[in-house]
Amino acid sequence: MPAAMPSPISGVIPAATEATSVIDQLRSIGREFHGRSWSLGTSSNYSAVVGRDPLELLITVSGKDKSALGSDDFVRVDATGRPIDGSGRKSSAETLLHCLIAELVPALGGHPVGGILHTHSVWSTILSRADLDRDCIRIEGYEMLKGLEGIGTHETCVEVPIFANSQDMQELSGRIRERLSAADWGDPRRPPVHGFLLSGHGLYTWGRDLAEARRHIEIHEFLFEVVARQRMLAAAHTHS
Amino acid sequence: MPAAMPSPISGVIPAATEATSVIDQLRSIGREFHGRSWSLGTSSNYSAVVGRDPLELLITVSGKDKSALGSDDFVRVDATGRPIDGSGRKSSAETLLHCLIAELVPALGGHPVGGILHTHSVWSTILSRADLDRDCIRIEGYEMLKGLEGIGTHETCVEVPIFANSQDMQELSGRIRERLSAADWGDPRRPPVHGFLLSGHGLYTWGRDLAEARRHIEIHEFLFEVVARQRMLAAAHTHS
Amino acid sequence: MPAAMPSPISGVIPAATEATSVIDQLRSIGREFHGRSWSLGTSSNYSAVVGRDPLELLITVSGKDKSALGSDDFVRVDATGRPIDGSGRKSSAETLLHCLIAELVPALGGHPVGGILHTHSVWSTILSRADLDRDCIRIEGYEMLKGLEGIGTHETCVEVPIFANSQDMQELSGRIRERLSAADWGDPRRPPVHGFLLSGHGLYTWGRDLAEARRHIEIHEFLFEVVARQRMLAAAHTHS
Amino acid sequence: MPAAMPSPISGVIPAATEATSVIDQLRSIGREFHGRSWSLGTSSNYSAVVGRDPLELLITVSGKDKSALGSDDFVRVDATGRPIDGSGRKSSAETLLHCLIAELVPALGGHPVGGILHTHSVWSTILSRADLDRDCIRIEGYEMLKGLEGIGTHETCVEVPIFANSQDMQELSGRIRERLSAADWGDPRRPPVHGFLLSGHGLYTWGRDLAEARRHIEIHEFLFEVVARQRMLAAAHTHS
Repeated sequence: MPAAMPSPISGVIPAATEATSVIDQLRSIGREFHGRSWSLGTSSNYSAVVGRDPLELLITVSGKDKSALGSDDFVRVDATGRPIDGSGRKSSAETLLHCLIAELVPALGGHPVGGILHTHSVWSTILSRADLDRDCIRIEGYEMLKGLEGIGTHETCVEVPIFANSQDMQELSGRIRERLSAADWGDPRRPPVHGFLLSGHGLYTWGRDLAEARRHIEIHEFLFEVVARQRMLAAAHTHS
Repeated sequence: MPAAMPSPISGVIPAATEATSVIDQLRSIGREFHGRSWSLGTSSNYSAVVGRDPLELLITVSGKDKSALGSDDFVRVDATGRPIDGSGRKSSAETLLHCLIAELVPALGGHPVGGILHTHSVWSTILSRADLDRDCIRIEGYEMLKGLEGIGTHETCVEVPIFANSQDMQELSGRIRERLSAADWGDPRRPPVHGFLLSGHGLYTWGRDLAEARRHIEIHEFLFEVVARQRMLAAAHTHS
Repeated sequence: MPAAMPSPISGVIPAATEATSVIDQLRSIGREFHGRSWSLGTSSNYSAVVGRDPLELLITVSGKDKSALGSDDFVRVDATGRPIDGSGRKSSAETLLHCLIAELVPALGGHPVGGILHTHSVWSTILSRADLDRDCIRIEGYEMLKGLEGIGTHETCVEVPIFANSQDMQELSGRIRERLSAADWGDPRRPPVHGFLLSGHGLYTWGRDLAEARRHIEIHEFLFEVVARQRMLAAAHTHS
Repeated sequence: MPAAMPSPISGVIPAATEATSVIDQLRSIGREFHGRSWSLGTSSNYSAVVGRDPLELLITVSGKDKSALGSDDFVRVDATGRPIDGSGRKSSAETLLHCLIAELVPALGGHPVGGILHTHSVWSTILSRADLDRDCIRIEGYEMLKGLEGIGTHETCVEVPIFANSQDMQELSGRIRERLSAADWGDPRRPPVHGFLLSGHGLYTWGRDLAEARRHIEIHEFLFEVVARQRMLAAAHTHS
């Protein structure tokens, strides 16, 4: 890791674990998310930014069981997603999206990105499909929105963008780049963008470090469940 | 801790753990509640009364991951919520509500308060929003109501007050004080008040010690899920 | 424990744990059921038959946290529910129901009873309330019914009796005795009775030993969730 | 185990556990699936192919608690399901279905089968009953479908066959053989068959090794929950 890099493990991780390596953190996140059914069946991929000039990511190897990530289940890639550690390991098919986020978010005026997490939960899968025709999930008025960095009140409305799913990462990353770039990141009246959904697929979120990215996963997943159940409860009210 | 203080760890905590420190109890509660998805994403705050004359609380530091609270993630505050331990740590933004509860509940004729717990669950979030226009969630006829201190039969109706959410703690605590003070705490025909909800936000409950407060969290959360699912099942019956 | 007693720990418990004491089994069941949200907030009570001539039960002390039962959180009672171990401990308020089951089930022609478990789950609470007017929950055609002792095919219909809840244990046990006695236990065409529900309250089930009683809890709880969700899914089909 | 057998433990299991015995893997799967409520109450059965010429399976003994499988809770059977290890242990009643899968799937052109897992979840139970009249559950357009071996895009439609439940294993295995044989395994435009459902009962799936079979359980179970909840959410939309 280049000198003078902000450690991806700083932040809300308690003092006692600040010496934990990035790999140990990613393995721990895998066990936790698999246990919560957010990363079943070798789904999901996680990365940490381990170099910025030039950009380098450490990302999970393709097709690994997230409940039992080993020390060798990671590969270093450059800004184009090409492996650079000579290990011969194959990174996740969605590596390009991690590279895009790490490069684009700070360039657009967001915080530096230290960790990127992608999960496949039941609620994100069904909500992202149900709301695809609206292009986003609107989440408004919940206290838990304050768990997203930079949001200080429940009186806000976050619109989590939804993109139609694709297996063509070049095409998909083009659409994501275009839409995120069009958002007005500098407008203080608008909540910051901390994630997006692929329809019928799952959530991408990020943070200045892995701890913040993990928090953003928890907040988004909590709110997706809230939004979906709120609709079902409202429908029950209508009828009872 | 002043002498002659009733220990916040007495009560239903089993004998073997009576020597456990308050901090260890709060850390254990954090791990448990995070695991149950009641305290995700650095949400929630917990406190124990560690002095009564004058009032002193030990409360979680703002913005900590509740699954991994460290020994230093707590701060002592006085009755106005001001830190008094010289640690420079920042207490939760909602510290004033903890102070209000610790002072008001016994003054109104409730039991002494030894522990105060605040959680953000999916069911409390959606029910508190769905029923805000009724000002309370009515919970009637369930055996689990007996898990709330002072309730000896299922033949009762508990009305958990709901308050519109606010980021202005002075304003919010004023409304809570007014409404709780108006309740007739001395009327033996009415069940005691053991908690309230902030709409779209979560639950506050308390107990004579942390064990009782934890029990009150479990009882309320169980009953919120029951009330919400009962409505959805009833709507299904209407249609099948 | 009197000699020649069938051990309540025999049965499906694996060989390696056959030496585990009854108390250790009950403590383990408490941790497990609390973790599954079937015994939150000091709810539930569990017992093992530790003597038969005369009848003696070892039962959980009233009001204990089931996630942390200690070795002393149990009391021996006689067939009338009176403590007989001189410990001064207070048994659960529902001790009489345990005594009734231990005495009545074998007398009516059922298997000997070695363990009795009572839980408070969300699904048993709402289903027992929704179906109280039918006096039972009908569970028909599911393979999991074979998990109830003596049932060898899914082509059966189990009717789990529901009783209106009461705080008067004499009155309640009278109603239970009357209805269970009226069932035709000797009719091989009818599935055996392995449990009953108290409306808005929870499930009582039993087994020849604690392992069988635990299995019966799991089977009933699974099937209650299935029955409730099947109705909700059916209502969704009607509308989509 | 005959020489030159592909190890059932190869595959996605991380390097560190490649020495784990088949029995240890099956015990671990039992603890995990019981914890996820997919194998409650002694339900479910699991097997590994431990010989191919002639076919031999190691399968769970009938009626065991899957949360605590012991080293002796397995029995070796031949291609007809007959025990061949002289242990006198009784294999699961559904042993014939395991033998059928191990023999039929490779014969029809599928991959070699190294592990076969059968679970009883809430969602598979209710969906398999709700959709029995359609003969299959259609799962279309979800990214998680790529977790099934041989599927490389979400743009596919998997039809998981449903069979009416039966206690007559000869009759049932005849129906399964007939329908699976009729499927066009060689058509590259159709997704491969990796599992089937027994109505009101549960899921059978398999893989080249136990790790792949476990992954297929996770994928199917995830998708069953998604399909059922998507329908319920859609019904709520219709009404709100």
